[in-house]
Amino acid sequence: MAEEVSNKQIILRDYVKGFPKESDMTLKASTVKLKVPEDCSDALLVKNLYLSCDPYMRSRMRKIEGSYVESFTPGSAITGYGVAKIVDSSHPNFKKGDLVWGITGWEEYSLIRSTQGLFKIHHTDLPLSYYTGILGMAGHTAYCGFYEVCSPKKGEYVFISAASGAVGQLVGQFAKLLGCYVVGSAGSKDKVDLLKNKFGYDDAFNYKEEPDLNAALKRCFPNGIDIYFENVGGKMLDAVLLNMRLHGRIAVCGMISQYNLEEPEGTHNLFCLITKRIRMEGFLVFDYYHLYPKYLEMVLPLIKDGKINYVEDIAEGLENAPTALIGLFSGRNVGKQVVVVARE
Amino acid sequence: MAEEVSNKQIILRDYVKGFPKESDMTLKASTVKLKVPEDCSDALLVKNLYLSCDPYMRSRMRKIEGSYVESFTPGSAITGYGVAKIVDSSHPNFKKGDLVWGITGWEEYSLIRSTQGLFKIHHTDLPLSYYTGILGMAGHTAYCGFYEVCSPKKGEYVFISAASGAVGQLVGQFAKLLGCYVVGSAGSKDKVDLLKNKFGYDDAFNYKEEPDLNAALKRCFPNGIDIYFENVGGKMLDAVLLNMRLHGRIAVCGMISQYNLEEPEGTHNLFCLITKRIRMEGFLVFDYYHLYPKYLEMVLPLIKDGKINYVEDIAEGLENAPTALIGLFSGRNVGKQVVVVARE
Repeated sequence: MAEEVSNKQIILRDYVKGFPKESDMTLKASTVKLKVPEDCSDALLVKNLYLSCDPYMRSRMRKIEGSYVESFTPGSAITGYGVAKIVDSSHPNFKKGDLVWGITGWEEYSLIRSTQGLFKIHHTDLPLSYYTGILGMAGHTAYCGFYEVCSPKKGEYVFISAASGAVGQLVGQFAKLLGCYVVGSAGSKDKVDLLKNKFGYDDAFNYKEEPDLNAALKRCFPNGIDIYFENVGGKMLDAVLLNMRLHGRIAVCGMISQYNLEEPEGTHNLFCLITKRIRMEGFLVFDYYHLYPKYLEMVLPLIKDGKINYVEDIAEGLENAPTALIGLFSGRNVGKQVVVVARE
Repeated sequence: MAEEVSNKQIILRDYVKGFPKESDMTLKASTVKLKVPEDCSDALLVKNLYLSCDPYMRSRMRKIEGSYVESFTPGSAITGYGVAKIVDSSHPNFKKGDLVWGITGWEEYSLIRSTQGLFKIHHTDLPLSYYTGILGMAGHTAYCGFYEVCSPKKGEYVFISAASGAVGQLVGQFAKLLGCYVVGSAGSKDKVDLLKNKFGYDDAFNYKEEPDLNAALKRCFPNGIDIYFENVGGKMLDAVLLNMRLHGRIAVCGMISQYNLEEPEGTHNLFCLITKRIRMEGFLVFDYYHLYPKYLEMVLPLIKDGKINYVEDIAEGLENAPTALIGLFSGRNVGKQVVVVARE
């Protein structure tokens, strides 16, 4: 008979309006059998090690229809990207002891019924937590967003908002490696220091201390912006549109400033798209997973050779996951927000 | 000695705020010598035949800096696209009697000091006024906007706003010829009838009679929109964003609903760019003039074989040009708005 063990879970109580609070989630004590049930073919029972806190998860906290993601189910464990170790498998391609990253549950153990979108981890000489970020969804997002959507060229002027976040910190470094001039915005002095000193940005500013974003961008980019990597939306996007150069490109990765508003702010300067012949393109990493092996091939040596820096903000313990997730929306995290459930 | 003749001109009195009025312009009696001055090399003295009224001219009525066009000069004749006949030339490539289209003045005779952007008219078996529209800037705008920016494919769902205007009527017909499903919006019953009966649109609606644009689009496109050819901006763009399909494309040609506002309306649904991976791209015809001969090669036989219909709204006489121009912004014109200064 399979061993039955305790399985703590983070449950979403109900759909969330406005700014999410810790009390929107609750820790539930449960149990689980460490075996894939008899009637589940091609399934895995995994032990969760690291969980990823990502801004897109906010949209799953409300009732949504017809989007690229589904709502969380109130009363059930939250799901999201994570790194896990296989405890039992009924899938021919996965075996006990394998490490994987992909969608799992915010709980100690998860039954994964579909292995689609699950990646086996082959390189274990780097921290496993990296597969929640630089070696996982966030890293690949930065890669395909920058190289595939932005059509970057050496010497171009690149601006990145939320620039020290999981995706932003990597986009900036990819742009520097290509020979671009790179400026980032972030929400604290510490983050601005990180951008300049750790990630090698040419310049950076704290948007919370700039009374006029248009003026801040004009100061940093007297000749204008060729590429904007958009993570925040709202007022920043409007200011950027005024400062784009002819034939500029805007890769729309996220709009975190808008996620907790019931009615999104308006963008007023879209006419600049015409006068400056700007291409503005939204993208999702799912459309580029075929390039993931190519990305790993590029990024693994860069990490090992110290040519890319990567900063994580680690929360210890599943019970601290709600605080960690909510912190994303006030910018409390410095770098990629990870939750450690277990280290092995 | 060169003959000196009367030369009526349409003068912009001063920069315009809000909705332009006829009294913002005035008819001025002047005279002109029918000869290029001795000190003007590579210049032309032309007799203006047809003038084009185009929405972009609104932006030239205000003080602008750093845009793709310059402000009109208060106190001087308005300039814009037109068809003209050369009366005298000091340019080796142009001779007396040649017909040209390009930027000229809103006056009976103009001295053109730069022939850049001026095209010689070789095909005179079609109405000369067509070179203010289908065979000129508007036609080429429709061509490059649709074929070069929208990346259209047979069977796709295409929506066009201001669909019976100079550009819209042609985009819709190009899309039908390619085998797309095409719907247009316009601002009167007559225009909607024109779209359905003259231009062969599959469906059309009067946006002024739709209390809910989102519902109107859902009715016309139960499966969503692949391509939106954007001429109006504002509330229509927001409604369209909600109805775009995955990997849709929005070619931003104009935003006429916004041109008379001191502060443009906000666009609230840009997050759809991400969830639906939409590419939204502004363009200007100037970037595509190298394709103009290719366009003529395509469109001339279509017109001659009756496979493309083209509707003009003709105003007679230079003195009626201000009314004609202003009419664009209330949608008074049906089809391409042209002013006849002289027929030969």
